[in-house]
Amino acid sequence: MENILILGSTGSIGQNVIEVIKKGSKYNIIGIAFNKNITKAIEQIEKLKPKYVYVGQLEYISQLKNLFPYIEFFSQNELSELIAKNDIDFVINAFVGSAGILPSYYAIYYKKKFALANKESLVVAGKILTELAKKNKIEIVPIDSEHSAIYQCLEGKRQYLKKIILTASGGPFRLTDKERFESITKEMALNHPKWNMGAKITIDSATMMNKGFEIIEAGWLFDVDSKQIEVVVHKECIVHSAVELIDGSIIAQMATPDMKLPIAYALYKPDRIEFENKISLIDIGTLTFEKPDLDKFELLALAQDAFRKKDKNCGLLLNAADEVCVEYFLQNKIKFTDISKIIKKIMEDFEDKMPENIFDLQNQTQLIKKETEKVIESLRRS
Amino acid sequence: MENILILGSTGSIGQNVIEVIKKGSKYNIIGIAFNKNITKAIEQIEKLKPKYVYVGQLEYISQLKNLFPYIEFFSQNELSELIAKNDIDFVINAFVGSAGILPSYYAIYYKKKFALANKESLVVAGKILTELAKKNKIEIVPIDSEHSAIYQCLEGKRQYLKKIILTASGGPFRLTDKERFESITKEMALNHPKWNMGAKITIDSATMMNKGFEIIEAGWLFDVDSKQIEVVVHKECIVHSAVELIDGSIIAQMATPDMKLPIAYALYKPDRIEFENKISLIDIGTLTFEKPDLDKFELLALAQDAFRKKDKNCGLLLNAADEVCVEYFLQNKIKFTDISKIIKKIMEDFEDKMPENIFDLQNQTQLIKKETEKVIESLRRS
Repeated sequence: MENILILGSTGSIGQNVIEVIKKGSKYNIIGIAFNKNITKAIEQIEKLKPKYVYVGQLEYISQLKNLFPYIEFFSQNELSELIAKNDIDFVINAFVGSAGILPSYYAIYYKKKFALANKESLVVAGKILTELAKKNKIEIVPIDSEHSAIYQCLEGKRQYLKKIILTASGGPFRLTDKERFESITKEMALNHPKWNMGAKITIDSATMMNKGFEIIEAGWLFDVDSKQIEVVVHKECIVHSAVELIDGSIIAQMATPDMKLPIAYALYKPDRIEFENKISLIDIGTLTFEKPDLDKFELLALAQDAFRKKDKNCGLLLNAADEVCVEYFLQNKIKFTDISKIIKKIMEDFEDKMPENIFDLQNQTQLIKKETEKVIESLRRS
Repeated sequence: MENILILGSTGSIGQNVIEVIKKGSKYNIIGIAFNKNITKAIEQIEKLKPKYVYVGQLEYISQLKNLFPYIEFFSQNELSELIAKNDIDFVINAFVGSAGILPSYYAIYYKKKFALANKESLVVAGKILTELAKKNKIEIVPIDSEHSAIYQCLEGKRQYLKKIILTASGGPFRLTDKERFESITKEMALNHPKWNMGAKITIDSATMMNKGFEIIEAGWLFDVDSKQIEVVVHKECIVHSAVELIDGSIIAQMATPDMKLPIAYALYKPDRIEFENKISLIDIGTLTFEKPDLDKFELLALAQDAFRKKDKNCGLLLNAADEVCVEYFLQNKIKFTDISKIIKKIMEDFEDKMPENIFDLQNQTQLIKKETEKVIESLRRS
């Protein structure tokens, strides 16, 4: 049995991870980490009886210590100490947002087996993390459905990769005219046609910034340039992604949109465990593939262009600016079309210099966020 | 360098094999075998300078011996002797028709590396050949585009196979009403929408008997029952086949319809060589998948049902009866709809007992062919 630490255990990915682990007997859940969902956390601690628990919000710790006196608790500044524990074999990072970046660094630094569901880690710190992983001989196994699909298609074929075909649902505004983008409300943008996800990622799907982030992730994970990544709008969300090999063959992975599949693959690969999930190509009938409208989805184009200069850290800028913009949009403080306008401005204004180390990233992110807020303020005043 | 013997070098597959081999430096063509295309054969001998040449038609031998005195020639009864040669490492069987069955047997018997493009070998002698291959630890590598696709999708995933999804173009009569099948002429049936192939296999595509044969081939090659093989009509012929794994993932292989790809894969696997061939999912736009109409394509249903009883040799009966029927249809002696009628009659009348050895197969095939002719005669008299 391998001892696994689940970062973000109370979130939707984290809950799915626990469910998948319970199907087999390969893993013992030795630790969980959560931010603030205390009710869910207590339920999980009672059921899983972990040795270690990390708590993001300091105020919960004393309460939990009273309830579970035999558990070793860790607070915000002790995450590195937790991940360093010798009896942790495997770290699964399902933290949401930039809080997930440092844990990825620690997991790789302490040479743990590592599966990654946190998007920001590679978007913001792709260069630092992949270089460290290479040095420490750690494989970063993706849990995202697209990157898992690419990984699965490349099994045994990595050296023949010519191009990644990254599929996109196209989001809720695939068919909306660009002229009508001005009047897109929060409620409209939160209504994703296929996947049921958190608010931030759902808005990122609506702007297709999410697909831009996935280009950057795929670029770091599979060591390719954005010229080797083709985004294809595939509204049925059945082909989760595909790869083109040097002989012209395309290998594609299809499945129902259920995160348990990529999670199980990341935990058991190359083994596969049985699921009742089935798709029937005959029932589906038609699969369609379209060129994304880069004129409408400017953030996708922006990410594509920016990632051509792979040494520059465009991911940090894009991510920091996007985080602020989405937050403001969700608070009805800016319009849907302002999101791309503001991010473009930030990308133009700031030299995307690559930070020297993982800790500089945090400072630079804070800086860019503040600058983004300034841009927003000036926009709102005008 | 490995020494390769190409059986059927003058045919379309054989010519493609030579072209693919010439792209690399892994193989030396040590021998070629042809039946009667003497002009093409002379051209190939001059260019390739093989050590061994097998000639199907006896009358050409003395002529060739005069032209090429330093070559060792083999005639019909010396095929076993040729394949047994110690300096032959690899045999590629692209013979057409049942003439290809015995060479497959010899290649496996003499433990040569072996790639198979001859359809009849596994359809008629699947049990004998796969059992011998298992015993002699020889892998039968398929060259058929569908079976190559399945093989490629299963790389590293063989033990997780749940179901094979065998795609079919649907042939030229996919949209033709069953009532109009009576009036299908030879010319109509020879007009295949996607692949340019020989007359026999084109007619077999029109009746979908070809897909029935492919079920049987896939069944033997991948050791599955016909219940684990789903035929899906996919008129675009882009997905060459797919597999469903136990976790519910479908892995599919797509490519342009060019036989050079599966040939190159069979020769170089797991390596891939570069081809300019490209498909663009965006240009293709739509891929469709339909249930085959088993009421219209009775031979497909017949093969599916017959192969459920895998120990019985339904392939021999189907193949022998079909060979005769297609020949008669091409001579305008029977109607398109007679083909399935006659084959069904043969399947009903004859106990599909499994022949004991590869040589009995020949006799039994001859017997069934004669019986098929009798059925045709009685049909024509009535």
